[in-house]
Amino acid sequence: MTIGAGLEAILQPRAIAIIGASQDATKIGGRPVQLLQRFGYPGKIYPVNPRATEVQGLPAYPSVEALPEAPDLAIIAVSAEAAPAALEACAARGIRGAVIFSSGFAELGEAGEALQAQLRDTARRSGMRVLGPNCLGALSIAEKSIATFSIVLESSLPPAGPLGIASQSGNLGSYTALLARERGIGISRFLTTGNECDVDIADGIAWLARDPATKVILCCLETCRDAPRLIAAFEEARQAGKPVIVLKIGSSEAGQAAAASHTGALAGSDAVFDAVFRRAGVWRVQSVEEMLDLGHAAAVLGLERLPKSRRVMLLTASGGFGVLLADAASAAGLELPMPSAGTQRRILDAVPYASPRNPVDATAQMSSRPEILEQILSAILDDENCDSLLLLLSSSLYLPRLRNVYMQTLTAIRARYPEKVVMLTVHGPQDAVEELTAMGFPVVDGVGPSAQTLAGLCGLAAARDLPPPPAPVAAAGPLPPDALRNEYGAKKALAAAGVPVLPEKIARSAREASEAAQAMGFPVVLKVLSEDLPHKTEVGGVVLNLADAAAVAEGYDAMLARVRQKAPTARIDGVLVSPMARGGTELILGAKRDPVFGPVVVVGLGGIFAEIIQDVAVRPAPVEEAEAMEMLRSLKAFPVLDGARGRPRADLPAAARAIAALARFAAAHAGEVAEIDINPLLLLPEGQGAVALDALLVPAAAQ
Amino acid sequence: MTIGAGLEAILQPRAIAIIGASQDATKIGGRPVQLLQRFGYPGKIYPVNPRATEVQGLPAYPSVEALPEAPDLAIIAVSAEAAPAALEACAARGIRGAVIFSSGFAELGEAGEALQAQLRDTARRSGMRVLGPNCLGALSIAEKSIATFSIVLESSLPPAGPLGIASQSGNLGSYTALLARERGIGISRFLTTGNECDVDIADGIAWLARDPATKVILCCLETCRDAPRLIAAFEEARQAGKPVIVLKIGSSEAGQAAAASHTGALAGSDAVFDAVFRRAGVWRVQSVEEMLDLGHAAAVLGLERLPKSRRVMLLTASGGFGVLLADAASAAGLELPMPSAGTQRRILDAVPYASPRNPVDATAQMSSRPEILEQILSAILDDENCDSLLLLLSSSLYLPRLRNVYMQTLTAIRARYPEKVVMLTVHGPQDAVEELTAMGFPVVDGVGPSAQTLAGLCGLAAARDLPPPPAPVAAAGPLPPDALRNEYGAKKALAAAGVPVLPEKIARSAREASEAAQAMGFPVVLKVLSEDLPHKTEVGGVVLNLADAAAVAEGYDAMLARVRQKAPTARIDGVLVSPMARGGTELILGAKRDPVFGPVVVVGLGGIFAEIIQDVAVRPAPVEEAEAMEMLRSLKAFPVLDGARGRPRADLPAAARAIAALARFAAAHAGEVAEIDINPLLLLPEGQGAVALDALLVPAAAQ
Repeated sequence: MTIGAGLEAILQPRAIAIIGASQDATKIGGRPVQLLQRFGYPGKIYPVNPRATEVQGLPAYPSVEALPEAPDLAIIAVSAEAAPAALEACAARGIRGAVIFSSGFAELGEAGEALQAQLRDTARRSGMRVLGPNCLGALSIAEKSIATFSIVLESSLPPAGPLGIASQSGNLGSYTALLARERGIGISRFLTTGNECDVDIADGIAWLARDPATKVILCCLETCRDAPRLIAAFEEARQAGKPVIVLKIGSSEAGQAAAASHTGALAGSDAVFDAVFRRAGVWRVQSVEEMLDLGHAAAVLGLERLPKSRRVMLLTASGGFGVLLADAASAAGLELPMPSAGTQRRILDAVPYASPRNPVDATAQMSSRPEILEQILSAILDDENCDSLLLLLSSSLYLPRLRNVYMQTLTAIRARYPEKVVMLTVHGPQDAVEELTAMGFPVVDGVGPSAQTLAGLCGLAAARDLPPPPAPVAAAGPLPPDALRNEYGAKKALAAAGVPVLPEKIARSAREASEAAQAMGFPVVLKVLSEDLPHKTEVGGVVLNLADAAAVAEGYDAMLARVRQKAPTARIDGVLVSPMARGGTELILGAKRDPVFGPVVVVGLGGIFAEIIQDVAVRPAPVEEAEAMEMLRSLKAFPVLDGARGRPRADLPAAARAIAALARFAAAHAGEVAEIDINPLLLLPEGQGAVALDALLVPAAAQ
Repeated sequence: MTIGAGLEAILQPRAIAIIGASQDATKIGGRPVQLLQRFGYPGKIYPVNPRATEVQGLPAYPSVEALPEAPDLAIIAVSAEAAPAALEACAARGIRGAVIFSSGFAELGEAGEALQAQLRDTARRSGMRVLGPNCLGALSIAEKSIATFSIVLESSLPPAGPLGIASQSGNLGSYTALLARERGIGISRFLTTGNECDVDIADGIAWLARDPATKVILCCLETCRDAPRLIAAFEEARQAGKPVIVLKIGSSEAGQAAAASHTGALAGSDAVFDAVFRRAGVWRVQSVEEMLDLGHAAAVLGLERLPKSRRVMLLTASGGFGVLLADAASAAGLELPMPSAGTQRRILDAVPYASPRNPVDATAQMSSRPEILEQILSAILDDENCDSLLLLLSSSLYLPRLRNVYMQTLTAIRARYPEKVVMLTVHGPQDAVEELTAMGFPVVDGVGPSAQTLAGLCGLAAARDLPPPPAPVAAAGPLPPDALRNEYGAKKALAAAGVPVLPEKIARSAREASEAAQAMGFPVVLKVLSEDLPHKTEVGGVVLNLADAAAVAEGYDAMLARVRQKAPTARIDGVLVSPMARGGTELILGAKRDPVFGPVVVVGLGGIFAEIIQDVAVRPAPVEEAEAMEMLRSLKAFPVLDGARGRPRADLPAAARAIAALARFAAAHAGEVAEIDINPLLLLPEGQGAVALDALLVPAAAQ
């Protein structure tokens, strides 16, 4: 079934039945009946309650069978135990959508899971779309369709507008709607997926991507139960030109543990979620407030008007605020270009005592002579270094004298510079904010939130020009048995996949070792080969830097004696003879399996960087070379590879090729290989390549 | 003069003259006249204007001389050029305080500096306290003394309360007051110091530390023109038991550049400011909003009730919010202890489907059966792992049904657990927030701000038990000449100060070198000694690991030949023979001069860590050993020293002793030595000490 198919029964129902409808509007079975009537839902409302003939002034029906027609949507507000039968009755009556408020399912463990499985089976069998259970339901503003018991709708609905909200958490989703209502920000729909017995968050995103009323999608994510569906939904939104902003909770260990216990789903690595978002062009925020600020700003600008670059010029009437704004912009990753000499001159023409650099400080002259604002704004917006301008107005619009002049100025500026992004930091009043928003200015309250929102707009802009996602890799046939047996086999398999390795030989006697060494040239390294000894160094099974044939022969015997003493039962397949590689920088390169997203590749600098500072980059496999290069650039230690402080620059393209090759391999053999460790991948100076010095494949069954 | 002396003339004046008083209330000379009258200032108001007999309904005076009495305070709102004469006239008339609004002084460079110097001279000569110039003035709420033209007072004053605001930036200070007014948070005074010709930010802090109306001090800092005064003011506040919360702007490079150009003062390192704040027990925040949240919370709790530890239990009615709160708490550095088995049982008794771990999720039962809240709160607060509890109520107080029960519950809880910190995350309504605040609960809106505020409260609590600041170090006599000449002399001087070095000898021939090596034992290191060659390695002036007398003699000659070829004109003082030290971890330890705070010490791990990751700790000298240990612990790479992953644990106390010794040395010789580099300090495993392998002192004159 197409992702998101059939959700119109839930979001645009022409008639709604409430199973378990209650006379008491504080009950979950009573609230929708009340809200649908209060806010003027235009369709038919059918309370179903075997013990009432009337519910909140509406005729009630004893059963679904007794309804005069099959409504599009049934709201199920009965006990968990009664829910499966209720849903089955709805399916039998031909109802196409259901929202199940009831809790007491998979979130409680096994017994609840069995009940939930019944719901899922009914949904699958009938093709009915079922939202929940254990959810806060759904809401469409324009249709006034209210299939939720959220207390945030107590006083009024949010205005209709372009933001669509899809949330796994009921409370986070409805809190988003509450904030939108308070700020007068329009939303199209909201739906909360709860336990996701049928409709999942991917359905919600994909349906909103096709919904003409929705321009920007806000998404609260706790977990992901089906990675390919989620990724496909993100891609559908991207192709529809609808920015997706995600609040993904569980960024901390404590939060992840809580999320896993709360959702009953496996906790994927937060860093892998980050990588998935980045690849999909989805922008991640840290709070509901930030999500709403950014969503609103993106909707006001529209996709075509998103910033062209991260370069922003800051304009304030206060030195202190200018510094604070520069700090916040830097922290958000924005760049502050210097205005050209000509621009600076024009600013000083308007205000001789201004600070014409970036941040531009127009001083208190902006209050005493507000008419200078137009001159300064024009100077800045004419500067070719300026793609975006952030103007801090703070609380000045409370003064009618300033408000009038500023509004006129901004109206003129908006007309003259339609292609430039002018964002405003404004602390009220509300009606001025709404007026500015209507004029097409993104307006945010607060210095930090303004900088973050602008950075988010830049991030969303980048999604427009994303490379296509990496082509999927077909599953490959089984690996040769020795690939999972020892280093030699692992390297052979990786080499066949395109990971560079050294020319190596297996020796089974001191003489064979000496001969092999002579053939490849000294110095060499000896390493014991044994499927029982994945950690060779710990048993003394590695000897480095052997300079001649005698040393090799001697080293061979001494090493095997050591190993046999420390690991008497280990099956030894021989000794690997390799040329001794020198110079370069050691990377660790590996693959493992994420519980949500499957095989992922990880790269970092060797030694303490990866181990202690946790300075690694991770991406789901496969990975294209360009993205592999991005992984390297994202490392804090990247300057070490990039020629910092007189070091030779490393062969970055070779590293990127090795990452991409490993990623393809990991994706192709995901069923057979649980983990891959290349430690180290020796990365040589520019033009000299990279080479895997050690490799280990851990079979899936071994984990 | 005592820091802060005489500010009562500015903050508690019994009569105020306005020099340059204007009929027009939008002018800076008109606004105070209007505001003083509108808000009912009880003292005398004397407009001074030679061209008017009446200003805004008050009799005006042609000059300061013509005033019937000498008021405590003169507000000077005339042009920059006219200000020095006006101030002089005030001093002559016996006025004890002045606020100069006028701009056009040091912020404009040299010409303005000369004008400003006249103001300073008048202040110094007369003992008059002068606030400004180029400032927004001062305000005392209880006294209704309004010596400001801030537009944020347009509609009303903030309520009187315990927060005192001292700000260098006028706009940031008055924006803080505006937010306080909007949220109904009480403030005592606010003063903005602008160009600080006389009264500086230290004066403001110290005066507020003595002010009975002020309990918590909020401080916006752009720069520091006199470090010892600032540090003394912080200490005075600490001893008075008044938490100081600082918004220090210029945390980014772009911000620092803007701050330096805006204030005309030298930009000190932001990291050194951090160190000064930490040592003073001052808590640094990132935004005006955070400053106000934390200040208000600290005032509501009072110093005695600040949290006992960073351990916090989280309670929500929503799994999603719980995870988000756990993320925010972790990010803020709080710890989330697990409730005991008994606590968990009691929570499950109240709500069988709750998640009783931390974050505790009481589920939607908290709305349907609000009376369970008391049972759950008691269970958590009885847990000995719980020092603080953060309860998320979100928007639920908008529902009268819930509000009533919750308020009753919280009243009872507050009485039963007077010593526990219970913080609330509440999104309105305003009157409920004020009611809770009056009951003694710190209340914050938003998940992130709540966690940050609680972390700030923990930080302020730590200030109560701070060790005394390090005893000052007297300036020492001049160093022996060779200390600044070469490595040998530098090490001798540092060794005398307590920094451990190896037994070393100077050799002036190959034979002397061999003999010295034989006496100290092999292997040894040779290093060229020359005041012209601070970077020995670059000229081949270091040879490591010489194993016998012949190798030393040969190495000696070869090295000198190399050096003479590469640096033919360098004056060579001989060759240093040292034992070859091995093992251990290399630190870099150094001292340099901060433009604001003078000598500072810096420590980090050697190599890429310090250079590329910028993983270093910095503190003003001197530094006690306990603080030196904290410096080490603050390094990201600290686990490398602390025995991570099977490494031997380093001799941390030896490193701390070396840091403290270097810091004393740097402080004692601050006039003579501009920079000290010990690179590396070899830190050996536990119990084996540390040793400086190389050292360089850069004379002050050389910089």
